[in-house]
Amino acid sequence: MKNFEFANPVKIIFGKGSIKKIADEISAGSKVLMTYGGGSIKRNGVYDQTVEVLKGFEFYEFGGIEPNPHYETCMKAVKLIKEKGIDFVLAVGGGSVIDATKFIVAAACYGDGDPWEILSEEAAVKKALPFGSILTISATGSEMNAGAVITRAETKDKLAFGSPFTYPKFSVLDPTVTYSLPPKQIGNGVVDAFVHVIEQYLTYSEEDTLMQDFFSESILKVLVLEGPKALEKPTDYDIRANLMWASTWALNGWIACGAAEDWATHMIGHEITAFYGLDHAQTLAIVLPGVMTVLKEQKSKKIARLGKEVFGIEGLHAVERTIQAVEDFFEKMGVKTHLSGYGLGAEVADKVSNRLKERGWILGECNNITPEIVKEILLLRV
Amino acid sequence: MKNFEFANPVKIIFGKGSIKKIADEISAGSKVLMTYGGGSIKRNGVYDQTVEVLKGFEFYEFGGIEPNPHYETCMKAVKLIKEKGIDFVLAVGGGSVIDATKFIVAAACYGDGDPWEILSEEAAVKKALPFGSILTISATGSEMNAGAVITRAETKDKLAFGSPFTYPKFSVLDPTVTYSLPPKQIGNGVVDAFVHVIEQYLTYSEEDTLMQDFFSESILKVLVLEGPKALEKPTDYDIRANLMWASTWALNGWIACGAAEDWATHMIGHEITAFYGLDHAQTLAIVLPGVMTVLKEQKSKKIARLGKEVFGIEGLHAVERTIQAVEDFFEKMGVKTHLSGYGLGAEVADKVSNRLKERGWILGECNNITPEIVKEILLLRV
Repeated sequence: MKNFEFANPVKIIFGKGSIKKIADEISAGSKVLMTYGGGSIKRNGVYDQTVEVLKGFEFYEFGGIEPNPHYETCMKAVKLIKEKGIDFVLAVGGGSVIDATKFIVAAACYGDGDPWEILSEEAAVKKALPFGSILTISATGSEMNAGAVITRAETKDKLAFGSPFTYPKFSVLDPTVTYSLPPKQIGNGVVDAFVHVIEQYLTYSEEDTLMQDFFSESILKVLVLEGPKALEKPTDYDIRANLMWASTWALNGWIACGAAEDWATHMIGHEITAFYGLDHAQTLAIVLPGVMTVLKEQKSKKIARLGKEVFGIEGLHAVERTIQAVEDFFEKMGVKTHLSGYGLGAEVADKVSNRLKERGWILGECNNITPEIVKEILLLRV
Repeated sequence: MKNFEFANPVKIIFGKGSIKKIADEISAGSKVLMTYGGGSIKRNGVYDQTVEVLKGFEFYEFGGIEPNPHYETCMKAVKLIKEKGIDFVLAVGGGSVIDATKFIVAAACYGDGDPWEILSEEAAVKKALPFGSILTISATGSEMNAGAVITRAETKDKLAFGSPFTYPKFSVLDPTVTYSLPPKQIGNGVVDAFVHVIEQYLTYSEEDTLMQDFFSESILKVLVLEGPKALEKPTDYDIRANLMWASTWALNGWIACGAAEDWATHMIGHEITAFYGLDHAQTLAIVLPGVMTVLKEQKSKKIARLGKEVFGIEGLHAVERTIQAVEDFFEKMGVKTHLSGYGLGAEVADKVSNRLKERGWILGECNNITPEIVKEILLLRV
C-alpha cells in the first residue's frame, strides 16, 4: 500500500425529506446564492422545497448552469456574488451544478488574478466561500469530493481542479428527488460511477490494497445489481438509495487511498465531449472497453479479478469475457458503447490524439498511454 | 435504508515513516501534552520519534494510562493541562490511550461541573481541546471516531461517551510501529475489529443496506484473510497495513450509516472486563458466539449471509456452522472463547445479568435482550 494523507470532511444528510434540514447547516444571517441548472428542479419540486427553507435567509438565484459547465457561465455567478456580497452558496443539482459551484466559490476569492489560472495553470486555491449541495442526480460523486471539471466554451478546453477549500460543507442526498429522472440520466449516472471506481481499481496492481479492492468491488456490485433495476422500477426507494450512496462512494476519495490510479478513460472522454458534445458518461462507455483491450496485458490481474468478483466470470478467456461484460452492462443501462452509435467515426481518433499531442499529455497509471495509443484505443471503438 | 446524518473529519496520515509529518498538523506555538500508556512506546522507538518531532514545541508528558483507562487517571491529566495551559494533546498509543485522551480533552473544557457527568449522565460536551493521535495498536478504531469508553475504578462503572468535538484532528497510522506487538495483542486487535463490524452488520436486517453490507463483508474478509498471516509474519508490511486500515474502518462510523446496530456483545463484554479484568477482546470472543446462538432466529438471514460471503459456508446447517466458524476464527487468533479458558465459570452469568438489571438496560438492535437473556447467553459460554 502506498503512503497517503487524506481527510474528507463533507457532512452527508441522507434520506427522504432531508432538504429541510439544511436550515441548520447554514449560519444564521448568511446571504445565500442558490445555483442550479436548466430548471428541472422547478418541475420536480426541489426548487420549491429549497426556496421554502431559504426563506429565513437573504437569498439570490443563479440558474442556467449547463451540463459540462462553462467557465464563462461561472464567471457571471462570480460577478453576482461580488455585487451582492454573498457569503454562502447552495448548489442544487447534479455534478455539473456542483462542479460549477466549486469553481465559482474559489474564483470569487481568487483576488486580483484571472481565475482561469486555477484551471489552466493549476494555480493554488487559498480560500473559497463555503457552500453546500442538494444532489438531484446520482452520478459524479461531486457531492462528496473537492474536485471539479470546467469547460471554456471559447477554446473547448475541459480542465479539472481541486482544493481542500472546495469540499461541500454538507450534501443532502434524498433518493426520492431522483425518481423523476429520465432513463437516459439513470443510465449515464450508473456508467459514470462505474467508471470512477474502475479508474481507481483497474490498474497494474503492484500495490497490495486488499481493503480498497474489496471496497471498490462492493461499489461495482451495487451498481451492477441495482442499476438495471432502477430502469425498471425508478420509484423504488431502496434501489435508488443504494445507487445514490454507491455513486457518492465511487468518487469520495477513500477507495483511492494507497492505490494506483489510472484516469485515462476520463481524460480521453473529456476531449470527446469538448469536441463533439457527447454526454460525459457516453464518452466513458465508448472509451473504457478500448482502454481495457489495449492495456489488457498490463491490467490482466485486475481485469480477471473484476470478472470473478463482480461479474462471476472465471475460466477460459476470462479477461476478454470480462471486457465484453463491461460493454454489455453499459449497453444494458442504455448507454451506447461505440462511436457509430452517436453518428461518429474514425475521425474522432485523429482529432483527440492530436489534441493530446498538443497538450503533451501521456496518460494512465504507468504513464505509458501516448497519443498514438489513444488513437489505437479509439479506432477500436468505431 | 434509514435516514442518517454523518461526517467524519479525521485526517489520516498513513504509511511507514509518517510520524514526522505531525509537525505540520499542530499549530505553531502550541503547548502540547503527549499522553501515553505503559511505556512500550519507549521500547519500540515511537517515543523517541515523537519527542524528536515535538522538539519544535513546548511539550509535556503524561504516561501511565492503563488499559480500560480510568476516570481517575484521566482527571490527573486534566489537572496537568490546566496547570500548564496546554492547548493541544497528542495521544500516542492504542485505543485506551486515545479513548482516555478524548475524555481528557472534553473534561478539560467542561467548565464548573463534575466531568464524570459526561459519562454518567451523558452530559453534552460543548467544546474540547484539539488533539491528534499516533496509533500503535490496530484494534479499537478510536483513531478515526469520536467515541471513548472510560472506567471508574472505584465503582467498576465502564461507560461510553462521544461528541462531534472529540474526533482526532489527525491520526498517524504507521503499520511498522505494530511490528513489535506480542501475538496476544495481534489476536486481540483482530477480534476487536471483527466484532465492531459484526455489531453494525449482524442484525435483524429489515433495512436494505446493500452497500454497507458489502463494505462490512470487505472489512471482515480482510481480517479473516490477513489476521492469521500477521501471527505468522508479524513484520510483513502489507499484511500489517491491510489489518491496520481494516481495523480503522471497522469503527469509523461509515458502515453504520443507514443501518441497524446491535452492540449487545460489547455491553455484556464491558461488564465482564469491569468485574474480572479480562481484556476487552477476550470478553467479545466469549460473548459473541453466545449472542449469535441465542439470537439465531432473529439474525438468521444475516448469519447465513456472513457465512456465505466471509467464510464460504453454504448448505445444511449453514447458520450453526457459521457461528462455529466465528468461534474457530477467534481461537485461531489465539483468543479463547469460553469463560473456563480464563478460570471463570457460571458465576459470571449472575453477576453480569444482575448488574444490567440494576442499570435497567435492555440490549440489542430490537431492544429485546433482557438481563435474563444475557444470563442465558453467558451460561452457554462457560
